[in-house]
Amino acid sequence: MIQTQKKVAIIGSGLVGSLLAIYLKKYGHDITVFDRRPDIRNVEFSGRSINLAMSNRGWNALHEVGIEEEIKKIAIPLDKRAMHVVGQPEYYQKYGKEGEAIWSISRGVLNRKMIDLAEEAGVVFKFEEKVWDVDLPEGKLFTGETEKGAWQEYQYDLIFGCDGAFSRVRHKMQRRSRFDYSQDFIDVGYKELTIAANEDGTHKLDRHSFHIWPRGKFMLIAMPNLDGSFTCTLFMPFEGEVSFENIKTNDDAKDFFKTYFPNVMQDLDNLLLDFFKNPTSAMVTMKCFPWTYWDKVALVGDSAHAIVPFYGQGMNAGFEDIFVLDALIKEHQDDWHTIFEAYEKVRKPNADAIAELSYRNFVEMSSKTADPKFLLQKKIEKYFASQHPDKWIPVYSRVTFSDRPYAEALAEGDAQEAIMKEVMSLPNIEEKWNSAEVENLILSLL
Amino acid sequence: MIQTQKKVAIIGSGLVGSLLAIYLKKYGHDITVFDRRPDIRNVEFSGRSINLAMSNRGWNALHEVGIEEEIKKIAIPLDKRAMHVVGQPEYYQKYGKEGEAIWSISRGVLNRKMIDLAEEAGVVFKFEEKVWDVDLPEGKLFTGETEKGAWQEYQYDLIFGCDGAFSRVRHKMQRRSRFDYSQDFIDVGYKELTIAANEDGTHKLDRHSFHIWPRGKFMLIAMPNLDGSFTCTLFMPFEGEVSFENIKTNDDAKDFFKTYFPNVMQDLDNLLLDFFKNPTSAMVTMKCFPWTYWDKVALVGDSAHAIVPFYGQGMNAGFEDIFVLDALIKEHQDDWHTIFEAYEKVRKPNADAIAELSYRNFVEMSSKTADPKFLLQKKIEKYFASQHPDKWIPVYSRVTFSDRPYAEALAEGDAQEAIMKEVMSLPNIEEKWNSAEVENLILSLL
Repeated sequence: MIQTQKKVAIIGSGLVGSLLAIYLKKYGHDITVFDRRPDIRNVEFSGRSINLAMSNRGWNALHEVGIEEEIKKIAIPLDKRAMHVVGQPEYYQKYGKEGEAIWSISRGVLNRKMIDLAEEAGVVFKFEEKVWDVDLPEGKLFTGETEKGAWQEYQYDLIFGCDGAFSRVRHKMQRRSRFDYSQDFIDVGYKELTIAANEDGTHKLDRHSFHIWPRGKFMLIAMPNLDGSFTCTLFMPFEGEVSFENIKTNDDAKDFFKTYFPNVMQDLDNLLLDFFKNPTSAMVTMKCFPWTYWDKVALVGDSAHAIVPFYGQGMNAGFEDIFVLDALIKEHQDDWHTIFEAYEKVRKPNADAIAELSYRNFVEMSSKTADPKFLLQKKIEKYFASQHPDKWIPVYSRVTFSDRPYAEALAEGDAQEAIMKEVMSLPNIEEKWNSAEVENLILSLL
Repeated sequence: MIQTQKKVAIIGSGLVGSLLAIYLKKYGHDITVFDRRPDIRNVEFSGRSINLAMSNRGWNALHEVGIEEEIKKIAIPLDKRAMHVVGQPEYYQKYGKEGEAIWSISRGVLNRKMIDLAEEAGVVFKFEEKVWDVDLPEGKLFTGETEKGAWQEYQYDLIFGCDGAFSRVRHKMQRRSRFDYSQDFIDVGYKELTIAANEDGTHKLDRHSFHIWPRGKFMLIAMPNLDGSFTCTLFMPFEGEVSFENIKTNDDAKDFFKTYFPNVMQDLDNLLLDFFKNPTSAMVTMKCFPWTYWDKVALVGDSAHAIVPFYGQGMNAGFEDIFVLDALIKEHQDDWHTIFEAYEKVRKPNADAIAELSYRNFVEMSSKTADPKFLLQKKIEKYFASQHPDKWIPVYSRVTFSDRPYAEALAEGDAQEAIMKEVMSLPNIEEKWNSAEVENLILSLL
């Protein structure tokens, strides 16, 4: 496989930008990664991260360039959810079959590692150099201290926008006619919090679990780090009765944790410190099309399809973009126009599907988990799947533990939902949920 | 009614900007209208306009500031559609009841008149002065020759973004967190064409009709001007079998008109000239929220809610924004924060509704008009409405000839659609469409 060597710019040194650099470097391209931020290896982390949950699609993409094992060293497998429900003892829900797990990784730790690997491969990084403008047809970048100040001009054969949900590269494409775009914020924000390790470096909660404290309109999650700590994320409405807006003082926050999360109290000081130190961040679903400009420019990852984090697939989807792009490079070699055209055509429906699935998970978690009908439906699905594991693969497993297209998972999920609608409309379904009648009805509808 | 005098900037001297200036000037405010373009009174029109169809909401807004009669002098009432269907003689469809009409106005002619009226009232216009940046909390504007060049700074108490679908003011709001935004282009473009007047200044087609040549995937419309000409609009897909992309030469265009629009051939030379002189324009639905920033900045008209033109409501919706805003000013006086908050709350659902209705009209015209089931449904609705005019008000009438909220028209339309779904599922509906059975079914469902 030989490609003509190209001068390539990648905007954004995040996870997607650095992995794409590693991929493209394998073809011998001359690669420069620009980032407006300082080198993450030299600065403190932002305090606004949710730990990553690497699953099948992410690992596939890392495996392809031979760095899967390297990255597994900084990840912790989680084979189950640990549910912390008020008034009940902690209980566990296995994610999938034996051996199936999602992997908890600190975003910052992973990002540092990926930049190291890219640099070792010969990629050049230019930090603290902000791209203000892009000349799409000419492949030119303009960087500088300020928007109004003097700019430095660069020219490249290929430019990749891996600069996230608020991408400057996309921003430039967006001003063209016939560019579809949407950004939709949800009314829930999130805040990073930390539970520190025990003094001996061990974890305060089970380290192989994804911990969830569901509380209806808000929830806390915790994912383990290698150093014994947990990165927690508090999801909560910006405004309303229990909301970020309404927790103003240290006492407000103390009351809040005492009332709703009694079993994290051993680390209250830490939580309170983080609560007021770390920012409250917003979450957005961003969609756009096209993703590419001729044979010059392409968007990859969040810049093309930012999603809410409730399916743990943001990074996985971005890594899968690269995996797919790479397969197309192998197929079409130097024909970048065809590569880009096929790339956006293949990936767009899947990006839309995971956006939809992620948003539905948010709605489910925030409004349906208290609905007895919904809980009964989930119980029936689980029971039927346990009886017929070959006939009923949960959507979560399709998304997380397979590499089949996201769009297929969404379609299969909708088909399952239609079947369950009929099941739930049976009279007295509450009593006969695990009866042969229900089982046979589902079998007949499948 | 006394308001404290404010320094007000309006960005955009289009129809909405100039009408808003006239409204606000009545309260004694100090008003400057900025526009990046030259004064439309001194330049040729763009060649990319669709004639306007002023209906109830537009007239109400003009009436409120006493300029309705003035504007009626430059408008022509159209009380019917004139349908030019292949293989059939021209036939007419009345729009509404006796006396109900939409009014054809040239966008350019109206805009010139509105600027004259605003200037006479004491509004200051600054043409060819482009706003590059807006400081929202400080109410500052920055204008200049180029983005990178020297800028002039202004400060205002209130800033109104009336700068259309690609609003610079909104653009600035859009970079803030939690700002929802979408732009969706349709795959059909349009081109302005002209049918000239007869030598004696009379119209070549019936002057009190909205002329339509429906051709499935594409169509031509024509609306009369005072000078005897018609402004025509050709709507056609950008790409595909019959498309703008596929009409490249004069001969291509000649064939196209000869094949599909034989009865406009008397003006072929004119049409061909326009076809290659005038640009092909794109159409977009643009939604966003919020529309205001604190008590400082508000979006009005297309900058807040651009819609596709297939309901003839773009200008009417923008004028109704102003009418509603004015009612809120009268109610809340100097409390601009409350005025703005109420304004966006009241108008947003109605803007979404007319966007949806306009988009549905596009889908209807481009894909459903050839469907016999759809045509039968429309025939039944029309028949029933003629039997029970008090019980079945067509959505078109609610939108065009009433001032009830757009959202109500959409909801009523959906309710009618649900009824018609049941009607259309009756066996042998083709034969008994005007039977008592069908009539009674509709009555029972209403």
